[in-house]
Amino acid sequence: MAHTTPPPHTLTINARSYRMPTRPVVIVCIDGCEQEYINQAVQAGVAPFFASLADKGTVLAGDCVMPSFTNPNNLSIVTGAPPSVHGICGNYFFDPEQGAEVLMNDARYLRAPSVLAAMAEAGRKVAVVTAKDKLRSLLGHGLQGICFSAEKADQASKEANGIDGLLDKVGMPLPSVYSADLSEFVFAAGVMLMERERPDLMYLSTTDYIQHKFAPGTEGANAFYAMMDKYLLQLDAAGALIGVTADHGMNAKTDSLGRPNIVFLQDELDETLGGRTARVLLPITDPYVVHHGALGSYATIYVHDASDTPRVAERVRALPGIQKVLSRAEAAATFELPPDRIGDLVVLSERLTVIGTSASQHDLSGLTVPLRSHGGLSEQRVPLLFNTRLADVPAKRLRNFDVISLALNHAA
Amino acid sequence: MAHTTPPPHTLTINARSYRMPTRPVVIVCIDGCEQEYINQAVQAGVAPFFASLADKGTVLAGDCVMPSFTNPNNLSIVTGAPPSVHGICGNYFFDPEQGAEVLMNDARYLRAPSVLAAMAEAGRKVAVVTAKDKLRSLLGHGLQGICFSAEKADQASKEANGIDGLLDKVGMPLPSVYSADLSEFVFAAGVMLMERERPDLMYLSTTDYIQHKFAPGTEGANAFYAMMDKYLLQLDAAGALIGVTADHGMNAKTDSLGRPNIVFLQDELDETLGGRTARVLLPITDPYVVHHGALGSYATIYVHDASDTPRVAERVRALPGIQKVLSRAEAAATFELPPDRIGDLVVLSERLTVIGTSASQHDLSGLTVPLRSHGGLSEQRVPLLFNTRLADVPAKRLRNFDVISLALNHAA
Repeated sequence: MAHTTPPPHTLTINARSYRMPTRPVVIVCIDGCEQEYINQAVQAGVAPFFASLADKGTVLAGDCVMPSFTNPNNLSIVTGAPPSVHGICGNYFFDPEQGAEVLMNDARYLRAPSVLAAMAEAGRKVAVVTAKDKLRSLLGHGLQGICFSAEKADQASKEANGIDGLLDKVGMPLPSVYSADLSEFVFAAGVMLMERERPDLMYLSTTDYIQHKFAPGTEGANAFYAMMDKYLLQLDAAGALIGVTADHGMNAKTDSLGRPNIVFLQDELDETLGGRTARVLLPITDPYVVHHGALGSYATIYVHDASDTPRVAERVRALPGIQKVLSRAEAAATFELPPDRIGDLVVLSERLTVIGTSASQHDLSGLTVPLRSHGGLSEQRVPLLFNTRLADVPAKRLRNFDVISLALNHAA
Repeated sequence: MAHTTPPPHTLTINARSYRMPTRPVVIVCIDGCEQEYINQAVQAGVAPFFASLADKGTVLAGDCVMPSFTNPNNLSIVTGAPPSVHGICGNYFFDPEQGAEVLMNDARYLRAPSVLAAMAEAGRKVAVVTAKDKLRSLLGHGLQGICFSAEKADQASKEANGIDGLLDKVGMPLPSVYSADLSEFVFAAGVMLMERERPDLMYLSTTDYIQHKFAPGTEGANAFYAMMDKYLLQLDAAGALIGVTADHGMNAKTDSLGRPNIVFLQDELDETLGGRTARVLLPITDPYVVHHGALGSYATIYVHDASDTPRVAERVRALPGIQKVLSRAEAAATFELPPDRIGDLVVLSERLTVIGTSASQHDLSGLTVPLRSHGGLSEQRVPLLFNTRLADVPAKRLRNFDVISLALNHAA
């Protein structure tokens, strides 16, 4: 193969080239998959697919994009690009023109096309299955193919989703949005699609309901990974090239007795600087917060009067549990974020601490088990696993959004 | 109580004042006790003593001293002071006069007296039980009282240890140095001593054999915490004021399949800068390395020619997995370390990575389970737990070496 001209049958999207799949490629994003979950499941002997990768596949790790949240990372994975390119850097941002917090779950906020859509446009069969419906519209934007969520599988139609009759075809009842079944439905649908449709490229994206509740190696976690392993074995047996990564890791955010370590940032700023100085926004906030109470290790701050920014930053930096405070420009440069959709300051808390706004604004009644969450740098390291040998893996910092490129361009 | 003059019955040691105990005080250092171990054991319902502390006791967290290793922290706990005061900052340092790596496990390297020794000198009955013998001589330095290790309990004599016939008195056989039993012997001995001797101040220090092997919430870990909880209930029932802390936390240091993430620092420096430029020393190295292969998240570097120090630092900073590189002066100031016993550079690796010297120097055959270790900033947060309410806890950063002061000076 000559290296001076692009090989045939490639497509270029967001300035990266991808070879066309020569066998079915399945990219799996396991939501909240701290690497230790896989390690412990393998140790427990319940994950033969994962265990086999040391010998017959490729085991790497990479960094997810910051903030280590679901939407920015799923969008990075399917576009092969950081949030500065695709525009999605959280669930919410503050729109100064509207003077309001704006939900970023709508496809009109997307600034880049996905590899999925481009692959479909190039005539390949593409399928996307998400756990929650909130991701479906973003991931399916511009996509001619199959695209549905487990959450609304009962409402899927040929017109809107490229497939119908899902509950029958998958052979599972509609799962609850707060359940391990929601993710199992994603995998069962993936296996069904591989049998019935044999897509050239399939993207499966789970939800981290289990990882928010169970620590690596505990019974609930091992059962979940055993379930995924079973379906991955089936996809593997069907001849698929499988690439597995995660949107972010997951860590305990509590003290010795499981009580959450929370910095209520809005309260702190209101008390020390006055109530109108700065507005704290938590981009993790979304319509499904029961399992984490909208508490993560990342926040943005909008400062009403720009001249106050340095003293707000100084005040936040001094708080116990805070790891980093970056200006808008620093955060945009360091984490490749769109500067117009982050605050004047970006705040990260350390591994065991989360950031809240005001104590009165967080309903913690849904936290029936000790808080586990994400959002910070401590959740940036994620798996990059393949069921085949890769060749010529670039000797650079790998990212979770390299997963499609690694699968399509580097499979031996 | 007047605050202008010291209250009666206090002693001052290493510039801190301690009230004399009015009931038996037991300070427990659980080696490698990441807070999540306690949280998960409480969640599993196997740790009623720990679970009770939320209501009837005090649950705090503090930072251990860096490096997050056993000896520096045990010495800090018993002296109430950082390594800059007591002098012990690892198991080894490089002595330029001798031109050799020198073991720091000998009491002649101690630069400060302990609260234990001072309390005994003031006429109070003091007892110390360690798991491994390496700590016994350091902790018992200058102490008139009972002091022995579980490891050599069979050799204890009245003359050398203040007590004999230990296997009979404790009612357990001599435990293996690599076992959970070694720590159980410490607790069983503590309960025996409370019954027979009722010491005014007792220090119990376990070993982290279990924490190096088992993740929080897994069966092996929960069984270990259930064991400790059972003995703590007995000490509690005997009327002891109990303070629990840890020398350091513990984290997985592997990839998704449990393979260690190791930066072989000596190899990296030899390859890029030449073999005589710098010498990497791992202060975690000790005679008992089977369970961690001498791999932790902290290293020091001695640079042969001082003018090379900046480029060595620059080279190390660029390595993946390295979190921080500090000069001797920066490290001494930041971590309160004795500058004459650390290298020209101090290196910390990030949570999931450990530092080795040369691949050929590490015997990993003893790592029968995926590596879990410590040494870095990611293992700095530890529990500070008390079986009674504390009053007037200082509103400052708490340290594990505040545990004796909190127990003696702040118990309600």
